[in-house]
Amino acid sequence: MRQINLVAFLQAQNCTTLPASWRHPEARTDTYSPEYYQHIARVLEAGKFDIGFFDDRLAMPDMYSGDHAHTVQNGIRCVKMDPVTCLMTMAGVTEKLGFGATYSTSYYEPFHVARVFQTVDLMTRGRAAWNVVTSVNDNEARNMGRDGVIEHDTRYDRADEFLEAVLGHWDSWDDDAIVADKVNNLYAHPDKVRRLDYEGKFIKSRGPFTVPRSPQGHPVVIQAGQSGRGKQFAARWGELIFVVYPDIESGKQRYAELKASAAALGRDPDHMKITTLAYIMTGESQAEAEDKKAAYDKLTTDIDQLSLLSEALNFDFAAKGLDEAFSEEEIAGIQGMHALRDRVTSTGIKNPTVRDFMRITRRGLLNTKWIGGPKEIADMMEEWFTAPACDGFVIGPTHQPGSFEDFVKYVVPELQKRGIYRKDYSGTTLRDHLGLSKPAIGAWKTSADAAE
Amino acid sequence: MRQINLVAFLQAQNCTTLPASWRHPEARTDTYSPEYYQHIARVLEAGKFDIGFFDDRLAMPDMYSGDHAHTVQNGIRCVKMDPVTCLMTMAGVTEKLGFGATYSTSYYEPFHVARVFQTVDLMTRGRAAWNVVTSVNDNEARNMGRDGVIEHDTRYDRADEFLEAVLGHWDSWDDDAIVADKVNNLYAHPDKVRRLDYEGKFIKSRGPFTVPRSPQGHPVVIQAGQSGRGKQFAARWGELIFVVYPDIESGKQRYAELKASAAALGRDPDHMKITTLAYIMTGESQAEAEDKKAAYDKLTTDIDQLSLLSEALNFDFAAKGLDEAFSEEEIAGIQGMHALRDRVTSTGIKNPTVRDFMRITRRGLLNTKWIGGPKEIADMMEEWFTAPACDGFVIGPTHQPGSFEDFVKYVVPELQKRGIYRKDYSGTTLRDHLGLSKPAIGAWKTSADAAE
Repeated sequence: MRQINLVAFLQAQNCTTLPASWRHPEARTDTYSPEYYQHIARVLEAGKFDIGFFDDRLAMPDMYSGDHAHTVQNGIRCVKMDPVTCLMTMAGVTEKLGFGATYSTSYYEPFHVARVFQTVDLMTRGRAAWNVVTSVNDNEARNMGRDGVIEHDTRYDRADEFLEAVLGHWDSWDDDAIVADKVNNLYAHPDKVRRLDYEGKFIKSRGPFTVPRSPQGHPVVIQAGQSGRGKQFAARWGELIFVVYPDIESGKQRYAELKASAAALGRDPDHMKITTLAYIMTGESQAEAEDKKAAYDKLTTDIDQLSLLSEALNFDFAAKGLDEAFSEEEIAGIQGMHALRDRVTSTGIKNPTVRDFMRITRRGLLNTKWIGGPKEIADMMEEWFTAPACDGFVIGPTHQPGSFEDFVKYVVPELQKRGIYRKDYSGTTLRDHLGLSKPAIGAWKTSADAAE
Repeated sequence: MRQINLVAFLQAQNCTTLPASWRHPEARTDTYSPEYYQHIARVLEAGKFDIGFFDDRLAMPDMYSGDHAHTVQNGIRCVKMDPVTCLMTMAGVTEKLGFGATYSTSYYEPFHVARVFQTVDLMTRGRAAWNVVTSVNDNEARNMGRDGVIEHDTRYDRADEFLEAVLGHWDSWDDDAIVADKVNNLYAHPDKVRRLDYEGKFIKSRGPFTVPRSPQGHPVVIQAGQSGRGKQFAARWGELIFVVYPDIESGKQRYAELKASAAALGRDPDHMKITTLAYIMTGESQAEAEDKKAAYDKLTTDIDQLSLLSEALNFDFAAKGLDEAFSEEEIAGIQGMHALRDRVTSTGIKNPTVRDFMRITRRGLLNTKWIGGPKEIADMMEEWFTAPACDGFVIGPTHQPGSFEDFVKYVVPELQKRGIYRKDYSGTTLRDHLGLSKPAIGAWKTSADAAE
């Protein structure tokens, strides 16, 4: 029987994606300590999650008003640590839970990214995943020695080459290359280790790659692109997909489309798992969950929203009054997350105001229909899953670690009782949990060739 | 009483620095497993080492004959994993042992390096160090998207800027910046977090940095430059210095010079610890150690040497016959490790042959006077330490994990008995072990300003 995949949405920062989260009375504030991450890891493994996954951002939000004073004061994602280091901190206290981290294709070399994640896969015995992102934010560019971000579509062309180079490096060593025959001085078969010699328009890397093949063949590739070009990229490369489907009907449609796009590229659509984001507020009962939600909403401020809108859209929202409208040129000129911008324009408002952006995107606020007791939440999840509108869920925490503790305590047993979620891990690698087979050398080339 | 500092010289690869090491009958061959690194970590912590430190190389040796077949077959450092990931694997099973890793100033952005190592310092509760290197090898450049390496002196100018940017980022958050006052919505004091806005000739990075100040203030800075420009760089920036002093007399002189150089830059010379490399072959007795050495020498091959000479000097030694001489132009044109080249030319041979390079450098071979039982080794160490020709030692393993096990079993108790080495850790951070005080914000600027 088909089983739900569960992803925990993690941040190596002072709050969850929601700035209000650190103000929650039960939120831990030692968010830069190893014990904090290790506690969360143990909760997730007890809940039999497939994977805990870290997003990333290479800058502190300060697009809003061009200054970071409000960021630091309000605790709006002002801390952002290296996600791989936090991941390894958690890996040490767990045995089965998978771990993913985001590394941008815009500011690193593919040799480095391939090496880091393949090493993580070896050191966790097959529990690693890499979330591919293209960077959208000028502040990240300026921290990383550039003047500004790469233009949207060029960014994805570069990212395609980046993936070809990373996957090419990952395919450099055959599974059985290493012999380590001391007596005959044969460490590895010379004909089972290949040099890449990649030369693209944006990317080049020579090789030979220096990390042997890992337990999973290679780390799982995660992708979250939702714009037109991003969806194409996800269909080609993504093994685990993060989406934000607003409702079950559009979810069903988009899920089917994305699976069809993968199939059209020669991929087995079952080898691409689509998980949709759900911020879940739960408790003993529906009433308790609703009370929690009402209390939570009191923790938020306007500035949380304005600050994070500025970041995501790469535009200073302090430059406009709350009721001032954007011109069509301004809208078209936005180089940030197109999916977010399009959510506003797709409502039919031609010249949205700042308040329209706040109201429609609800960026930075807890914007969720997933409120209920164990039964209500499990009903919704089962409905989405069996529709199917998804293969699983990215559980977004309203605060930490309480949000994950509540989910594991209240919802997980209910899902297990219904037989749609594992009672225990049946394998040891992340691919085992996700039901993704170990890729053969060069397997990814099918979709790459089809996309050409 | 002054105490010896001990550094374990680690590699995230299939052998130690010595290719012969993997062929040792007692060498473990699961060098890409977490258990291997964790075992070594436990041995080092039992031996009360200050720090385990990983070198790095972003390429597989294949300068020799322009091909990697010999590398893979002979197991000449053909595996090279991400050192920070291996370090974190070890950190999880230890409580006091410090950890360092090498990251090159040539191929990463300072924001990234600062973030990774500051995160490691937080996640290990103050046990992190960063070894600063400038990259010398064309193959590394080609893996990392470049055509070739930066010229030697320019490389150090860039590195100076790189350090200013990294240390500047590390100084961005005051120790008491974070309040996490939920009720008054004050996460951190806005005036205690600063933006860097660094703009040099080679490096720029904006900030604000996204990692709070760590237990050590910032990670310990390790430096190993031994050429003229490299020594100047080390005197300015290095808190823990790796050197290879060939004998005690030259060691005494160079040790005093380096300490004086640091003092001339306004630094407290006691806050720069100088450790010299020692490959130690030990056992129950002198005779047993000598037998071990004789057996070890049988494990090596000419190709080990030629391959690693080619890498270090960025020159294909297969292009010349073993008895063919280098012209003075060829010698002058070598862009690799100047210290190694100078060791050959300083003997007075104007036109060295390939065999001269092999004989004088003994690159890739076990080249050590540190052979003896517990008493003999401890005598030598005490003599060097009290001369003083060093503050401590970088213990180079002939094979793993046996080399560290032998050292901890035979030599450590003898050093402890003499009162020149700790019986237990007296503190919890790497700075505690090394006797380095926690740096104040901006403390590094003294030497930086003096060097201008």
